[in-house]
Amino acid sequence: MAGLVASESIVVPDKMLESSGINVVQAEVTKVDAANKSVLVSGGKEFKYDKLILATGSSSFIPPIEGNDLEGVMTLRGLDDAEKIKSYIADKNPKNIVLIGAGFISMEIATLIAEHMPAQFNITVIELMERPLPLMLDKDMSDSVQAYLEGKGLTILTGEKVEKLTGQDGKVTGVTLASGKKLDAGMVFMNVGVRPNIGLAKDIGLEMARFGIKVNPFQETSDPDIMAVGDCVEKINFITQKPTPGQLRGPAVMQGRIAAKRLAGIDVEFPGVVDAGGCKMFDMTITATGLTEENAAKEGIETICAVVDSRSKHGMIPGMKPWKIKLVFDKKTEKLIGGQIVSHAIAPAREIDAVTAFILGGKTIPELTTFTSACNPDISSEPSAEPITVAAEQALMKSRKG
Amino acid sequence: MAGLVASESIVVPDKMLESSGINVVQAEVTKVDAANKSVLVSGGKEFKYDKLILATGSSSFIPPIEGNDLEGVMTLRGLDDAEKIKSYIADKNPKNIVLIGAGFISMEIATLIAEHMPAQFNITVIELMERPLPLMLDKDMSDSVQAYLEGKGLTILTGEKVEKLTGQDGKVTGVTLASGKKLDAGMVFMNVGVRPNIGLAKDIGLEMARFGIKVNPFQETSDPDIMAVGDCVEKINFITQKPTPGQLRGPAVMQGRIAAKRLAGIDVEFPGVVDAGGCKMFDMTITATGLTEENAAKEGIETICAVVDSRSKHGMIPGMKPWKIKLVFDKKTEKLIGGQIVSHAIAPAREIDAVTAFILGGKTIPELTTFTSACNPDISSEPSAEPITVAAEQALMKSRKG
Repeated sequence: MAGLVASESIVVPDKMLESSGINVVQAEVTKVDAANKSVLVSGGKEFKYDKLILATGSSSFIPPIEGNDLEGVMTLRGLDDAEKIKSYIADKNPKNIVLIGAGFISMEIATLIAEHMPAQFNITVIELMERPLPLMLDKDMSDSVQAYLEGKGLTILTGEKVEKLTGQDGKVTGVTLASGKKLDAGMVFMNVGVRPNIGLAKDIGLEMARFGIKVNPFQETSDPDIMAVGDCVEKINFITQKPTPGQLRGPAVMQGRIAAKRLAGIDVEFPGVVDAGGCKMFDMTITATGLTEENAAKEGIETICAVVDSRSKHGMIPGMKPWKIKLVFDKKTEKLIGGQIVSHAIAPAREIDAVTAFILGGKTIPELTTFTSACNPDISSEPSAEPITVAAEQALMKSRKG
Repeated sequence: MAGLVASESIVVPDKMLESSGINVVQAEVTKVDAANKSVLVSGGKEFKYDKLILATGSSSFIPPIEGNDLEGVMTLRGLDDAEKIKSYIADKNPKNIVLIGAGFISMEIATLIAEHMPAQFNITVIELMERPLPLMLDKDMSDSVQAYLEGKGLTILTGEKVEKLTGQDGKVTGVTLASGKKLDAGMVFMNVGVRPNIGLAKDIGLEMARFGIKVNPFQETSDPDIMAVGDCVEKINFITQKPTPGQLRGPAVMQGRIAAKRLAGIDVEFPGVVDAGGCKMFDMTITATGLTEENAAKEGIETICAVVDSRSKHGMIPGMKPWKIKLVFDKKTEKLIGGQIVSHAIAPAREIDAVTAFILGGKTIPELTTFTSACNPDISSEPSAEPITVAAEQALMKSRKG
């Protein structure tokens, strides 16, 4: 089980906060009295505030299907959930594990179980869309991921909708799909999205937006003394400039930093969400940023795309691994709007941060054909075939052809 | 000796070029008759051209000191030199190896010999400036590199000037420093810079610039039918907009691509040189881009700098390695103008390409405080401590204070 959950190291200890002069109170907030600027917590204690920051996060969405309350149906948001999954597997030894939703949390859990648990498990991932990691990768990139994971013994059922969960003695025993298929399941993991925790904000009477609490670029809500940050807040997508849930860890942390700076008298605006993320499954690392070709199309953006196969090191260096990158450009403006990397080494996957930086810089196809990476035979692919540059050249050829 | 030189894989075979319809002629060019648009080669053959591209490269600079022509004094530009070094070491088994100049070529050769050769070698690197890798790293970054390499058994003498090489029977046996120190040396490697090969261009009568052949942003020389690319050409530094030799592999390759596009009727301007580069020594990877703090000062640019220590993975993941990054900002404009990474894992060193992308995008200190990387516990440091972002915040604090 080693490697699945290492709880002691992932939470900042209260002592560390307290030594910085921060008073840590673990209690449920029962009421915020915005008129009197006070917070009531369970147990009856009251705290006065000058500024209040809401960081209420989000909760796993449990689809309203039959059997969703059976024992053995799991979700994952925090450490408690991770411990629950771990001990359920250890206690019940469920032979068949079914994961609903092929987002990166599901996929990492599926592969961690396959890597660290006894080999007798049957692991099946069910996805409504026609591919795994549908929000990160287009189908031309996810196909090789799916083949790789199936080669590792995972079953991935795509284009399948879950109808209900079946059970015996209050415990989950199976999953029935809308297509009529029935799967045995000793444990079911659900990863079909999260919902912002906005109950408290609503009680206070703060202005709401479509995807959460409404804030300005400095994280201020409609109440000038209440700020809000993270998954409970609606964000703006940097590329489309449209509202988005943006519920990833990166933007949440960033909004916390922006709120802190605002309180310290330093005004930096939140630039919007680029949706950069990554996951690791066995020795495959996947990173993505911006819009996929598919999501761009949904936004009405015509695209020019290019896929380039590369290597993690120069061909003459032992230990080089294959990787590939897809770049997505806006056909009209020729601006870079997205990137996807599938890599069998970790290092090339970090190249996605350069893609994000180019998106933030508004760089275009012709400009990217002149990018020169910090090349070295041991740390990157050949400078004569820098994948970002080559992808831009492919895009340039497509663009000039018409 | 394995790993030192793998000659068969680093040169594009003639056959590959010929199958693309390219006629490969290996001969010395004796004369270019620009008026008649013809090239004469050794053996007397003549080739007519519509467009001529000069890619004459550069040669190692041999300082005019006594003993520089002794046997056992080596430089490195091409495969032949590498084979010469390899066979000299195998044949002569020189106990003491001295490398003059602590640039990245010297340092990689020194560490490759230390890694792949018998352990009885004494390897000494002599550098005129007060640190190794003086063009890539400021002293606050190079100090840990020097300590690491000395820990691996290399001797690095900084602030030392070589006065002469001494020999016996025509073979090098020692190095005398201006400080009076004398070192035994069975082999001496010189890496003190390169000079552009501009003899042919001068014979043609092309316009010259300070650091090489003068070209426009499309790689065209003063003769409309002659282009020039690579080390033989003067470039513009992207940041200072001043002339620079820019003799790295990346810009050379890029200029070739720009010339090719120009000939194909696609005009993309060379944006200038950012000077991004990398090297690997044992398990330490070093990358750098833009200006160092020192070079910025030489250009009269006041800077704000920040150094951040980080880890290659989240603290809870086994196998995480330390790395650190330095960012250099222009104090007046607050724009990013340089970055340096020293890492004990390869992956974080690639983050330098994001730094280059931000430099190219003209991003400022406040903007970089909002950067969100594609974070994942396995492939990057914590999102709450993204080193580029944290470095920008440090710079922001310094900037607002002063």
